[in-house]
Amino acid sequence: MIYLDNAATTMKKPPQVAEAVCRAMNTMGNASRGAHREALSASRIVYDTRVKLAELFHCPRADHVVFTCNSTEALNIAICGTLNPGDHVITTVMEHNSVLRPLYRLKDEQGVKLSFVHCDSFGCPIYEQFETLITPKTRAIVCTHASNLTGNAIDLERVGKIAKEHGLLLIVDASQTAGVLPIDMEQMQIGILCFTGHKGLMGPQGTGGLCIREGIEIRPWKVGGSGVQSYSHTQPKEYPTRLEAGTLNSHGIAGLSAALDFLRETGVEEIARKEDALMRRFYDGVMQIPGVRVYGDFSGAEKSAIVALNIRDYDSAAVADELSETYDIAVRPGAHCAPLMHQELGTSEQGSVRFSFSWYNTEEEIDEAIRALKEIAEE
Amino acid sequence: MIYLDNAATTMKKPPQVAEAVCRAMNTMGNASRGAHREALSASRIVYDTRVKLAELFHCPRADHVVFTCNSTEALNIAICGTLNPGDHVITTVMEHNSVLRPLYRLKDEQGVKLSFVHCDSFGCPIYEQFETLITPKTRAIVCTHASNLTGNAIDLERVGKIAKEHGLLLIVDASQTAGVLPIDMEQMQIGILCFTGHKGLMGPQGTGGLCIREGIEIRPWKVGGSGVQSYSHTQPKEYPTRLEAGTLNSHGIAGLSAALDFLRETGVEEIARKEDALMRRFYDGVMQIPGVRVYGDFSGAEKSAIVALNIRDYDSAAVADELSETYDIAVRPGAHCAPLMHQELGTSEQGSVRFSFSWYNTEEEIDEAIRALKEIAEE
Repeated sequence: MIYLDNAATTMKKPPQVAEAVCRAMNTMGNASRGAHREALSASRIVYDTRVKLAELFHCPRADHVVFTCNSTEALNIAICGTLNPGDHVITTVMEHNSVLRPLYRLKDEQGVKLSFVHCDSFGCPIYEQFETLITPKTRAIVCTHASNLTGNAIDLERVGKIAKEHGLLLIVDASQTAGVLPIDMEQMQIGILCFTGHKGLMGPQGTGGLCIREGIEIRPWKVGGSGVQSYSHTQPKEYPTRLEAGTLNSHGIAGLSAALDFLRETGVEEIARKEDALMRRFYDGVMQIPGVRVYGDFSGAEKSAIVALNIRDYDSAAVADELSETYDIAVRPGAHCAPLMHQELGTSEQGSVRFSFSWYNTEEEIDEAIRALKEIAEE
Repeated sequence: MIYLDNAATTMKKPPQVAEAVCRAMNTMGNASRGAHREALSASRIVYDTRVKLAELFHCPRADHVVFTCNSTEALNIAICGTLNPGDHVITTVMEHNSVLRPLYRLKDEQGVKLSFVHCDSFGCPIYEQFETLITPKTRAIVCTHASNLTGNAIDLERVGKIAKEHGLLLIVDASQTAGVLPIDMEQMQIGILCFTGHKGLMGPQGTGGLCIREGIEIRPWKVGGSGVQSYSHTQPKEYPTRLEAGTLNSHGIAGLSAALDFLRETGVEEIARKEDALMRRFYDGVMQIPGVRVYGDFSGAEKSAIVALNIRDYDSAAVADELSETYDIAVRPGAHCAPLMHQELGTSEQGSVRFSFSWYNTEEEIDEAIRALKEIAEE
């Protein structure tokens, strides 16, 4: 089997990740619940993981790293916990439904106003719009670091500068980039960074979180047991407890911790270099196939390792099914939860076939995928 | 090490649970995202686990079993997703903060009114109050199945009958009982059952969920990617997708699935019998120690395997520390996120030392714990 659906989840993880989860399941108590050795060991692993994430993303404070079960939860917390009725928000057509649906909800229920930065024909954001869309009511820019459809990255340093100049909160969805592209919350002026553990970070499913810049107040999302201040009617005010009610997924976090060690030892740049090379090899190959149309910007700008394409007017799901059934190649067709990006590219009906690569893919796999596509296109 | 903090998390799990998680981490894609073999295998395991849970709890529909990361999230979804401004809710002083804090929030923010069923001196609910507290505005009863402090169970069949007679929604927190005490949603008239995976169900941390009776409408909690209906601005209306935005913790759910197999093979009644015997052996032992005061009802009524106690006026945290440091026995002192129960028992200042037992404890461990307590009490 050739797994090229790494933008959905990196199925292949460093072996130490599953080992760490197993070890945790045999030795760990409940983090922040009790002071015996097993509970403390859980608390320590959880805290160490916060430290590693803060380091990776240049988040000034490790205690401002909050764990959630996925980036969708993190984005809901960030978006719904900071915006107020009447606020205006700038976002982009590159967003995933994990950004769009919370924003639509605030629009419907609280009158939050939304403006969308559009893209050029390569799917690159028209950066000027981030500035021209600003109104006196604008409170935040909410944007992805890279499209989960095209892989095109947004230049966050550029957007962050605009946000800073105009006093806007910058909320970033790093689902497609954490662990692959460099992220520096300070340099990029990111207020809240939302990430998932099971994609580029190569950790287990059920992990993710937010990194929050000091001074940003996010209202609690779920509330409940916190292990401290039990007599208070409200969630403790301090991060991370403010946003972490109930038992954490410490087993998963232990795996994420091992994955972060792997990333540090291997080097995020090294991983990015390899994935980028695989992607470009694939791109070069499929561009030779008559009838193939590729979406996204391959001119050399920063992007995550994704190639979305269509063959003539073939239904994207049919192509993906044939890749799976005849060639045992796993890819993702359809809408990818990115409705506006598809509308922008004119692929709402057809969807597209998304190939996404990881550290564990090989050149041989790429070549086989190109061969398979070639055969399908010749049918 | 003797681990007697199973009410916080059952640290020792059946070995097949960690094995299943490991296997999942090496073979599973993203559930409900794509149609290739790895994604389908994830979807199948997730769906099978819904079926097993529906069977265990007598939930009429497997597609009404929704996964969350813990029972706190499930309770927030159930409570905040069904109650409306002005509603009146009956709850009990036996509740954990995972029930209390969502209710307090609705009280503060939406004017929901709360009434509390109190307990007798054994910590048993005064059942008559469930009925006498009902007003024309009463919409729901929200209660635990068993106190996480005393282990005392609430007779849900009795409460369910009252709920049915008065047309009230019954929301149950089964955090302390799922996998140990029998739960029958139909017979007990439970509208929404909230459970966690990492306690009595012996699954991994990061798992939990809700079982919802047909016809009960819960508003979406987090919203985002759903893998279906991607062009809709709102979360799909159908359960379970309505309440499951973003990538599920399929790795954890695979472990929970293996744990449910273990429960079925072993028998929930058999597990309950063993835990009950260990608890009563411990209870009988500590009742012989001068200065020990035990909380809860040990007259023979149904309860989960917990013994909460104090030694004279000793600080509960100091006793737990000595148990941990001198005897390597893990227990939980303090408030246990159950503030009203402590107030009711008059232990707000002292807290209490909670011993909680699981299938994997032994009589020898119980006897050693009794011996240790005896020595501490004689100091």
